[in-house]
Amino acid sequence: MQFHGYFRSSSSYRCRIAFNLKGLNYDFVSVHLLKDGGQQKSEAYKAMNPQGLVPTLEVDGQVLTQSPAILEWLDETYPEPPLLPIEPFERARVRAFTQVIACEIHPLQNLRVLQFLKQNYDQDQEGVAVWCRRWIGDGLEACEALLVKQNGGADFCFGDTPGMADIYLMPQVFSAARFGVDMKSFSNINRIVENCSKLEAFELAHPSKQPDAEA
Amino acid sequence: MQFHGYFRSSSSYRCRIAFNLKGLNYDFVSVHLLKDGGQQKSEAYKAMNPQGLVPTLEVDGQVLTQSPAILEWLDETYPEPPLLPIEPFERARVRAFTQVIACEIHPLQNLRVLQFLKQNYDQDQEGVAVWCRRWIGDGLEACEALLVKQNGGADFCFGDTPGMADIYLMPQVFSAARFGVDMKSFSNINRIVENCSKLEAFELAHPSKQPDAEA
Repeated sequence: MQFHGYFRSSSSYRCRIAFNLKGLNYDFVSVHLLKDGGQQKSEAYKAMNPQGLVPTLEVDGQVLTQSPAILEWLDETYPEPPLLPIEPFERARVRAFTQVIACEIHPLQNLRVLQFLKQNYDQDQEGVAVWCRRWIGDGLEACEALLVKQNGGADFCFGDTPGMADIYLMPQVFSAARFGVDMKSFSNINRIVENCSKLEAFELAHPSKQPDAEA
Repeated sequence: MQFHGYFRSSSSYRCRIAFNLKGLNYDFVSVHLLKDGGQQKSEAYKAMNPQGLVPTLEVDGQVLTQSPAILEWLDETYPEPPLLPIEPFERARVRAFTQVIACEIHPLQNLRVLQFLKQNYDQDQEGVAVWCRRWIGDGLEACEALLVKQNGGADFCFGDTPGMADIYLMPQVFSAARFGVDMKSFSNINRIVENCSKLEAFELAHPSKQPDAEA
């Protein structure tokens, strides 16, 4: 498997955690989102991934894009340990949690969106941070509310083993810290983050531990 | 099944198409996103769906949120006709296509985001339309590129029967029209939209056909 990603990309970070939880090895290809005007916009990269976003997973001559699709594929293809529960209602609850992050928070803090705010609405770094804090804060508040209803004090988002929801939560909390989101009231999230941080699968997936990491 | 939605919401529209394709009946509960300061923000609604977004599906005392999770649940629980292929790589490709729409386009044109642009960046209706056209245009361009690579002239996004990708595409094209996105170059999308429009499952799911429809 060849994995094209970027150390700071949340969606790359999600996949790295999943690879580690499943015990899968892969070759990493760095796609620097800022160098050369954005290496993800190169003709060569876009021939493989027309959307010009990371990550991309190449496996057996097949090209997989979009981290949620990659993660579902990983779980279908390498079922142990499972990332989703078996019971359909439970699967739906876990997926809904991941989609609060993947569909409601993450797209709004995507690099191309932040560049648009700077160029078209004359926002400086602090203006961009206000935007990010708003959507990350709202989204994590919804995640916390879901945990209050459903978590019951478990070590991880949905039970006592890490799974799909934790895979989405950790990178989002990492980027919340970058933008200075106030996390004090999110006691379930904070407890789960602490528990995830103790696991090697999460620790080795951290942006700072990647070969392309920068300060 | 009790389905809480709004006629113009893309994610409600997706679910309606899926219900129709599966031949499932449901009770509809209208949640007006603009009336009463947004009925989705009411205490009663948020007790059920803490994120305060539509749609919500209530079934057998269970509450399901986030349309991608609802659609996966529907396909797992009512497998005929299937919305996803069986082969894992093919499933991943269909899901990636849906996520270009669900994760890259749709969140950016969400009502709360457009309200933020008006209030914080002083954008008028045309400014908001410029924003929407940019992200819908970029996203549909990526969808068209995926179809050029993968569709091979089939009637629907992935083959000769409608499925998950078509369920996401139709509502997105409906909203593209609202914001005046130039669709001329998207020949695969246009052909597929024409084919979907001929099917009762899609036609009856159209926003204009809903009990809460407005001009």
